[in-house]
Amino acid sequence: MQAEIISIGDELLIGQTVNTNASWLGSALAKIGIPVKWGVTIADDKQAIIDAAEQAMERSELVIMTGGLGPTKDDITKHTLCEYFETELEINHEALQRITAYFESRGRKMLDVNVQQAALPKACKVIHNFHGTACGMWFEKGKSVLVSLPGVPYEMKGMMEDFLLEAFQLKFNVSSLFHKTILLTGIGESYLADQMADWENRTALAGLSLAYLPSPGIVKLRLTSRRGEVDESLIDRFFDEMEATLPYHVFGYEKAELNAVVGELLTARKQTVGTVESCTGGGVANALVSIPGASNYFMGSFVTYSNAHKIKMVGVKQQTLDRYGAVSKETAEEMAQGGLHALGVEYCVATTGIAGPDGGTVEKPVGTVWISVATKEKVVSKQFNFGDNRERNIQMTIFAGLNLLRCVVLDIYSEKK
Amino acid sequence: MQAEIISIGDELLIGQTVNTNASWLGSALAKIGIPVKWGVTIADDKQAIIDAAEQAMERSELVIMTGGLGPTKDDITKHTLCEYFETELEINHEALQRITAYFESRGRKMLDVNVQQAALPKACKVIHNFHGTACGMWFEKGKSVLVSLPGVPYEMKGMMEDFLLEAFQLKFNVSSLFHKTILLTGIGESYLADQMADWENRTALAGLSLAYLPSPGIVKLRLTSRRGEVDESLIDRFFDEMEATLPYHVFGYEKAELNAVVGELLTARKQTVGTVESCTGGGVANALVSIPGASNYFMGSFVTYSNAHKIKMVGVKQQTLDRYGAVSKETAEEMAQGGLHALGVEYCVATTGIAGPDGGTVEKPVGTVWISVATKEKVVSKQFNFGDNRERNIQMTIFAGLNLLRCVVLDIYSEKK
Repeated sequence: MQAEIISIGDELLIGQTVNTNASWLGSALAKIGIPVKWGVTIADDKQAIIDAAEQAMERSELVIMTGGLGPTKDDITKHTLCEYFETELEINHEALQRITAYFESRGRKMLDVNVQQAALPKACKVIHNFHGTACGMWFEKGKSVLVSLPGVPYEMKGMMEDFLLEAFQLKFNVSSLFHKTILLTGIGESYLADQMADWENRTALAGLSLAYLPSPGIVKLRLTSRRGEVDESLIDRFFDEMEATLPYHVFGYEKAELNAVVGELLTARKQTVGTVESCTGGGVANALVSIPGASNYFMGSFVTYSNAHKIKMVGVKQQTLDRYGAVSKETAEEMAQGGLHALGVEYCVATTGIAGPDGGTVEKPVGTVWISVATKEKVVSKQFNFGDNRERNIQMTIFAGLNLLRCVVLDIYSEKK
Repeated sequence: MQAEIISIGDELLIGQTVNTNASWLGSALAKIGIPVKWGVTIADDKQAIIDAAEQAMERSELVIMTGGLGPTKDDITKHTLCEYFETELEINHEALQRITAYFESRGRKMLDVNVQQAALPKACKVIHNFHGTACGMWFEKGKSVLVSLPGVPYEMKGMMEDFLLEAFQLKFNVSSLFHKTILLTGIGESYLADQMADWENRTALAGLSLAYLPSPGIVKLRLTSRRGEVDESLIDRFFDEMEATLPYHVFGYEKAELNAVVGELLTARKQTVGTVESCTGGGVANALVSIPGASNYFMGSFVTYSNAHKIKMVGVKQQTLDRYGAVSKETAEEMAQGGLHALGVEYCVATTGIAGPDGGTVEKPVGTVWISVATKEKVVSKQFNFGDNRERNIQMTIFAGLNLLRCVVLDIYSEKK
């Protein structure tokens, strides 16, 4: 079986509102084992609603329609569905009672347009809304169910959670899907696919389906099995294998964030960190601080943007800058060690790079970055090249700095990687 | 004419990723006068792609398809479009050259899957991608154009802005709307509407349509006229009036970014800036550094997160912290003045606040922030309260710090505002 979501609203089409309803519905339905296979967004337009409903009812067993149920003139979903399902409106007394009570409890006057919200198609089962005044409607035709819900996110979500998710499970007798997602950083999608080609083939042979979900600086790999069909611990074993193969890259699971992962590690170890930043201009510090409870482990930072400030603030040697340049292993290490000492912390992350668009040379093109992490015992350094987009260079350097810190804290960094 | 957007990707259907590409495209197309009337989201599934393309080409003159162009196995858009448009793949030499250069510049090994990204349908015009390795494709069939683009947002947006928006205007000969947008910060939407009610009425009488486009920390007001119908300079006169009324809040026009506005002011004046940050953890510095050419004016920063580091790094007095607390006008001013001296800059911005979720008191609830800007001649300070969301508090403090700096540089700050 498959589900389809029809989102109604001009504001979605012209980009004034991002369609978060559709993604919430997709996620909620996936969790109960109903895969959404089509999503359609249309205007408050009669013909578009009828066309979309018709196509969806042909393709999918479950069609969820949101939007166009408000009290204003441009809300035409209810009338259009009456036409499509060849039925007519009648006042639903339970709905009227609930709407009246809703207005009374808020001390607001009920208008005729609100009474009209209790007029509902004869042919539908009414879905009551305990979060607002627009009722939902449950229609059936042939093999398919069409449910129409208000577009206000908390009303729609409330009705799904109060009643509908359970009703869908009963109606469609679904076996749940089981997903798990592993998160990697510092490795490209194609490089990963190449390196894990055998692993990927084996996941397929084991009856799992694999999806790559890249976003800037992060690759998410999702393995899915139908609950019951495949042993769930299989996914764990595949992910354990990946983690063992790529410990430098795997930083977490599900919705983990790299900065939060680092924060938890430091909190658990009662250790402190500071940064000395050039090209990231405080971005690593900002990422660490954005986590609640950052004051447990984050102490402070120097942003040493100019060469003069690298010397003055953290004691980089003029000679080092002259001989190796500001973007070099040697400078990064002096920055990290200088910061470690001046801030009195257990780890200090230093970043120096050519963010661009200017400042590149043949030897050190735009995107060249050195990152060092210093502790009392050692300094670990790594060179990167992120390409020619300034914003991306800064963002990728922040990710790479956090990840190198994570690996040094966990003591899993090896120079070869 | 109408446009339609087809978004391809399982991650969109199951709600792992919110479909921000579709809303960005809807908004970008609306601005050039092309209305998006349908949006469709489908899986990486051959039949779904063919069905969606077929229906869209029948309904709409312009079809934009995003996603499924990556190098991995589950990316099947290119092969499917070959089938739909009855054509075959051939290596595009320009694309291959560009992809090769892309990998060379990053010092990364090019894999066979990457070479395959240069294999493109014979029947399409190739749209080059200067932001990544997947090319776009422009197909025509009957009255309609179908453009396939990568799903990675910055690649898709880059290709739209580099080339496609202009190409669509030429191809479809759309009559442009004339928009102008004024940008404000530090003022809420409803407060602004209240203060400018008379102004708003007069814009309507003058035949202009006004839209409020709020985003965190920024309010954008867009006035629209159809080119030719209304005197364009009218919009300028209305915006001049707003700027004269609210100089502290109006920071720019169109796509201006507050950090870039500040950077341009400092560059033009050949002046320098540094920051001393507590609750923003380097976020103000990071915002300043994210602009190309930041090294002209940005020198360095201290992130003084703990009290001990406020004392040690920029010489805040223990007595000041004891008497007034870390979040106070007095501490903010000593931070700003200490940084001004230590960094040897002409302006120093200091931030200190309770970002939350913990650390609030009755007197100083979560969201209380003090910002100071010091120069040799004076220190200007302002208190804010941004509420109880940590992420928002940090982001709003960064905006407010940049805006206070802007007003001090322009010498338009008055204590009353």
